[in-house]
Amino acid sequence: MTLSIENQGSSGSAYDFVPGQALENLARVGRGTPMGEVLRRYWQPISLSSKATRTPQNVRVLGEDLVLFRTGKGKVGLLYPRCCHRGASLFFGGVEEEGIRCCYHGWVFDTEGHCLEQPCEPELGLHRDRVRQPWYPVQELYGMVWAYMGPPDRMPILPRIDVFEDVPAGEGVYADDSGFSGGGPAEMDFNWLSHWENVVDPFHVPILHARFSGNQFVPEMAVLPEVSYSYTPSGVRQESQRRLKDGRIFQRITEVVMPNLRVVPDVMMRTVDAPCDTLGWVVPVDDENFKIFTLFRADDPNLLKNMKATYSGRLWAELSEEEHQRTPGDYEAQSSQGKISLHTDDHLTTTDQGVTMLRRLMARIAKQVAEGQDPPGLFFDEADAVIKVSGGNYWVSDTTDDPS
Amino acid sequence: MTLSIENQGSSGSAYDFVPGQALENLARVGRGTPMGEVLRRYWQPISLSSKATRTPQNVRVLGEDLVLFRTGKGKVGLLYPRCCHRGASLFFGGVEEEGIRCCYHGWVFDTEGHCLEQPCEPELGLHRDRVRQPWYPVQELYGMVWAYMGPPDRMPILPRIDVFEDVPAGEGVYADDSGFSGGGPAEMDFNWLSHWENVVDPFHVPILHARFSGNQFVPEMAVLPEVSYSYTPSGVRQESQRRLKDGRIFQRITEVVMPNLRVVPDVMMRTVDAPCDTLGWVVPVDDENFKIFTLFRADDPNLLKNMKATYSGRLWAELSEEEHQRTPGDYEAQSSQGKISLHTDDHLTTTDQGVTMLRRLMARIAKQVAEGQDPPGLFFDEADAVIKVSGGNYWVSDTTDDPS
Amino acid sequence: MTLSIENQGSSGSAYDFVPGQALENLARVGRGTPMGEVLRRYWQPISLSSKATRTPQNVRVLGEDLVLFRTGKGKVGLLYPRCCHRGASLFFGGVEEEGIRCCYHGWVFDTEGHCLEQPCEPELGLHRDRVRQPWYPVQELYGMVWAYMGPPDRMPILPRIDVFEDVPAGEGVYADDSGFSGGGPAEMDFNWLSHWENVVDPFHVPILHARFSGNQFVPEMAVLPEVSYSYTPSGVRQESQRRLKDGRIFQRITEVVMPNLRVVPDVMMRTVDAPCDTLGWVVPVDDENFKIFTLFRADDPNLLKNMKATYSGRLWAELSEEEHQRTPGDYEAQSSQGKISLHTDDHLTTTDQGVTMLRRLMARIAKQVAEGQDPPGLFFDEADAVIKVSGGNYWVSDTTDDPS
Repeated sequence: MTLSIENQGSSGSAYDFVPGQALENLARVGRGTPMGEVLRRYWQPISLSSKATRTPQNVRVLGEDLVLFRTGKGKVGLLYPRCCHRGASLFFGGVEEEGIRCCYHGWVFDTEGHCLEQPCEPELGLHRDRVRQPWYPVQELYGMVWAYMGPPDRMPILPRIDVFEDVPAGEGVYADDSGFSGGGPAEMDFNWLSHWENVVDPFHVPILHARFSGNQFVPEMAVLPEVSYSYTPSGVRQESQRRLKDGRIFQRITEVVMPNLRVVPDVMMRTVDAPCDTLGWVVPVDDENFKIFTLFRADDPNLLKNMKATYSGRLWAELSEEEHQRTPGDYEAQSSQGKISLHTDDHLTTTDQGVTMLRRLMARIAKQVAEGQDPPGLFFDEADAVIKVSGGNYWVSDTTDDPS
Repeated sequence: MTLSIENQGSSGSAYDFVPGQALENLARVGRGTPMGEVLRRYWQPISLSSKATRTPQNVRVLGEDLVLFRTGKGKVGLLYPRCCHRGASLFFGGVEEEGIRCCYHGWVFDTEGHCLEQPCEPELGLHRDRVRQPWYPVQELYGMVWAYMGPPDRMPILPRIDVFEDVPAGEGVYADDSGFSGGGPAEMDFNWLSHWENVVDPFHVPILHARFSGNQFVPEMAVLPEVSYSYTPSGVRQESQRRLKDGRIFQRITEVVMPNLRVVPDVMMRTVDAPCDTLGWVVPVDDENFKIFTLFRADDPNLLKNMKATYSGRLWAELSEEEHQRTPGDYEAQSSQGKISLHTDDHLTTTDQGVTMLRRLMARIAKQVAEGQDPPGLFFDEADAVIKVSGGNYWVSDTTDDPS
Repeated sequence: MTLSIENQGSSGSAYDFVPGQALENLARVGRGTPMGEVLRRYWQPISLSSKATRTPQNVRVLGEDLVLFRTGKGKVGLLYPRCCHRGASLFFGGVEEEGIRCCYHGWVFDTEGHCLEQPCEPELGLHRDRVRQPWYPVQELYGMVWAYMGPPDRMPILPRIDVFEDVPAGEGVYADDSGFSGGGPAEMDFNWLSHWENVVDPFHVPILHARFSGNQFVPEMAVLPEVSYSYTPSGVRQESQRRLKDGRIFQRITEVVMPNLRVVPDVMMRTVDAPCDTLGWVVPVDDENFKIFTLFRADDPNLLKNMKATYSGRLWAELSEEEHQRTPGDYEAQSSQGKISLHTDDHLTTTDQGVTMLRRLMARIAKQVAEGQDPPGLFFDEADAVIKVSGGNYWVSDTTDDPS
C-alpha cells in the first residue's frame, strides 16, 4: 500500500508508468486466503428466508457454490452441490420431509449431510452412514438465512442486534437483497473491498453524490464535513460534522463492524436523533462479485424499494452508458476501480484516513486469524450475544457534544 | 478413484472438504492424451453423409478443428483448415471437381491433401508436390462419414455391423446426429465420459427416469432390476432382469463396446426379442463437449425424431430451468456432474459395478495403447470386419435363461 | 519462419502434423514487446478529432486502455483511466475548462496529468503537485488525433504528408475510422500483422478479389501482374504491371511505410497518373484487434462511405456466414488465419516475396530498436518533417518506364 505520494518518471508519461497490485490479503475471499478465513469466522447472511423453499436454489458465497433448500419439515439446508455418490448436482434434487433426494440414483441427505437412504442398495444402504454430504450450519433470524462457513470447532453464536429487538408496535424488521446502497444491480460485479472501503470514506459524499452528479441524497449531505475517526473494539467509526447555513450542526456517525457490517445512517435523513436502523452486510459472492444484504426497521416493508433512486423518472438500469457518465454514483465510481482495484496505486491523503485505518485493521485481524487467534466481535456466550449499534444521524448544538 | 467410502472430517463440514480430481486419463481426448490416443485408433463417425456437400463445413472432433467437404466428383474430404500456403481457412475455400481451392491465393488440394495447383506460381507451381495439406482418411457407410484420426500405419478396416446388413425389405438404415438419447441439445456441453459411463449404470433408470421424474420410459423400466455384469472381448456387458407384477421376466442386455459405441436396447420397448438395432457413438467434440451419432434400422426414417421426449406437450429446449428441476433427465443429471466430473469424489457402491468395471477396462486399454499395443476390437482382415451386436430386450421364462 | 517447403510425415496425415507458432516478435504490440516498442516510436492516429469531445471516451491502443477527452478550452487529453487518487475511472469524469475532474473525490487533472485541484483537501491540496496522472502527448492534424506513446526523451516530430498539403480549391482532406479497406467491421478482430502483410501481397488480388469472388475491384485488377519489389528507406515498395487485352500497360505502385502506414492506390482506379491520395494506418487495438484510420483527399467528404462494397445490394454485415463463404474478401481471408496467425506454418513461395521482405525488415528494425537505435522514418527537424508518398496507379507505354 502506497501511503506516500510520489511522481512516476520526470515527465509523468504513461509510457513510464508501471501499474501496481491489489491488496490480495484484504480483497480475496476464497478458503485459505487471509481475509477469506476472517470472513468465515462470522455468521454471514446468504439469502432471504423467503427464498429458501422446496425448490433448490444455487447460491454462491465466498467463492463456494452451494445448494440451498427448505425441507418439508421447514428446516433450511445448505449443502455442497455435487452429490457424494456420483456427482449429479443437488440443484436437480427433490426436497422431501427430512432432506433432499439426488435425482440420479436417489440418495437422500438431511440438512447436516447425513445420508438417510440409498434406494438401489441392499436395505437402502447398509453402509450409508459412512458417507456424508458436505454441509454448512444455517440459522434463520430477522427474515434472513445465516450460514457459518468457518472451522466447526470455532463456531460462534449468531448474535442478535439491539436495534431490531423490542421493535415498537406497528413496526417490523425486514430484509432486502436488492443491492440497496450499491447504486447498481442487485449483484455487484466487482470486488467487495471497493464497496466496503467506501463506507469509511465520508468525503466522496459531497463530491460524487452532490457537486458532481447533482444531489443524490438530501441537500444537507452536500456540505463538506469535518470528520474524526476512531477505532472501535471491532471496527472503525467516523463522526462527520456539517455546519449548515442556518447555524445548525448536523452530526453523522458511521461505522464499519468487522468483518463486513456497514452501519450507515439514512442518507435521506428520514430518521434523525436515533440509532441507525438500516444495516447492510457486504457479502462477497466471490473475488469479483458481491451482494448487499440489508436489514431495516420500519412501519413499511416496502420502504427501501420506494427509496430506489430515479433519474428523471427512470431507474439506474434504464440509463444509457452516456447517462451514467453524466450522473455517476457509487456503482460507477467503485466498479470502475476495476474487477479488483490496484490498491498500491492509490495515493491516500488526509481525507482518506478512514480507508487507511480500515486497511490497517483488516490486515492486523487477518494476521491474527492466520496465527490461530479469534478475530474481534465474536460471541460465545448466549447472554451477551447482541451487536450494539452506535451509528446515526444527530442534530447537535455544539461540536463538543457527542451523542454516542 | 475412491472406491472405498469414508467421511470427510468428523463434523462433515464443507469447510473441511477438499474437492477431488477428474480421471484425466479417461476423460481427456486431445492428441497425446491416454484416452485420446485410444479413441484415435478406431474409425469415428464425424458427420452425416448428407452434411458433406460442396459448401465446406467446420467440424470439431477430439479437440481438432477440421473442414469437411464433398468434391464435385463426390469424394468426401476432411482437411486441416489452415491452408499450408498462407493460413487462410479452407472453410472459405471453393469446392471444385477434384478438390478445394483456397480463397486467398487459389491453391487447390485434393481430399488427401495433395496440392494440385498454385495459380500465381510459374507453371501452376513447379514445386507444388513438396507441400501437403494435413488430412484424414474418411469413408462413408450407413449414411455417415467416418474418419480415421490415428497413426496412419495402424489404420484398421472400417467394420460393418451385423444388424445393419441384410436389412429386410421395407426397412432401411438411417443416421441421426440430433443428440438422440442425450436428453438435451444436439451437442452436449460436458465431458463425454459422464454420458459414456451412464450406459453401464442400469440403476439410474428406475430412479431418474421413473420414480423421480415420472415415467420417462415405459412402465416396465421403473422396476428395480437385478443386474449381472461381465467383460466382453472389447467392452462391458450388463444383463438386467426385472420381475414384473404379472409374473413375466423382462431381460435387458446392454453393452458398451470400446471405445465409444453404446448398445442400448430401446427404452420404449418398441422391439423385444430381437437384437438391438439402434446404436450410438459417443463422439467427443473436445474435452468439454460431445455429440451422439446414432444409426438405427426402421421402416420409418423419422422414427427417432418422433420418439423425441415431450413434457406436457413441450420439448426439452422449451422448458424453464425450474421445469428442468422438476423433471430432470439424463442431460440434467450428467451435465450437472460438471464440465469434467471430479471422479475421485465418487463413492462407488455395489450398484455402481458397471462403472467400476468400465473405468478399469478403459484404464487398462489406455495403458496398453500407450505401450504400443493395439486396443481390442480392431479389424485388420476384411473377411471378418463385422461388429456383432448382442444387446437387446427379451422376455424370458426363467432367470437362468440367457438369450445371448 | 519456414521459407523452405517440405512435407509433414510421409502420409501427410493430420495425425502427424504439429502446428507451428506465431512470429511473436512481429505480431505482438504490448509495451516491452519488440514490435510494440517500434510502434511506440512513431505518432499514431488514435481517434477522429470529431470524437474527442467533452464526453470522455474509452480508447484502447497497443493494448493500453486510455481515456480521451477535449477540455473546455479545446485541448485534447489522453490519460491513463485509473485516477491516481483512489482508482475510479476518468471515463466517469467531468470535463472542465482546464482538465477533467474525477467523479469520486473531485481531483482535477490537466491534459498533461498535472493535478490542479483536490477539493476535499486543505487549500485544495497542499501537495497536489506531488502526484501526476499518467498521460500521453497528443496532437491534431488532418482531422485526426495523433498520440505519441513512446519514451518521452525520444519523441519525434509529427510529420505532415505531401499529398495532403497545398490541397486544390474545392478539395479537402478527410479522416475515416470505419475500417475502410478492411473488408469487414470497423474494428477488426484479429492480429494486425495479417492485414499489414496483405498490403505487400499483390497476388491475392486477381485470385481473392476477382477469380474467386467475382470482381470486387475494377476488371483491370483481375489480370495476373508482373511484380518487382524493393526496399525503400523505411519500408517495402512493389511495382505491379498488368498487360491489358487492349495493349495498354497498367502500373501500380504500392508501399508499406514503417511501422504501419499503408499506401495502396485506389483499387477502383478513380484516380490514375497521380500519387496515391488515400493513406491508411493499421493501428493495433491490442494483440488480437486493430483499427484502420484512413486519410483521403477528395471533393466529397462522403467518398469512402459511398465506396462501401455491396453484395447484391446488401452490405457485408448483412450477409449470412454461407454468403461470406461464397464471396470471401480481405476480412474472411485474413481473419480466418487465426486470432494471431501461426506464421511458421506458412510456405512462402516466389509470389510471396513482398511478405518475406517485409518480415525481414520488421525483424531487423525491431532488433535495432531493442538495441537502443532509432527506427527509420522518424523526423526530428521541423523543416523536413514531411512524409513523401510515391505510390499510385499509372498508365505506362512500356515496362521499362518508371514513373516514380
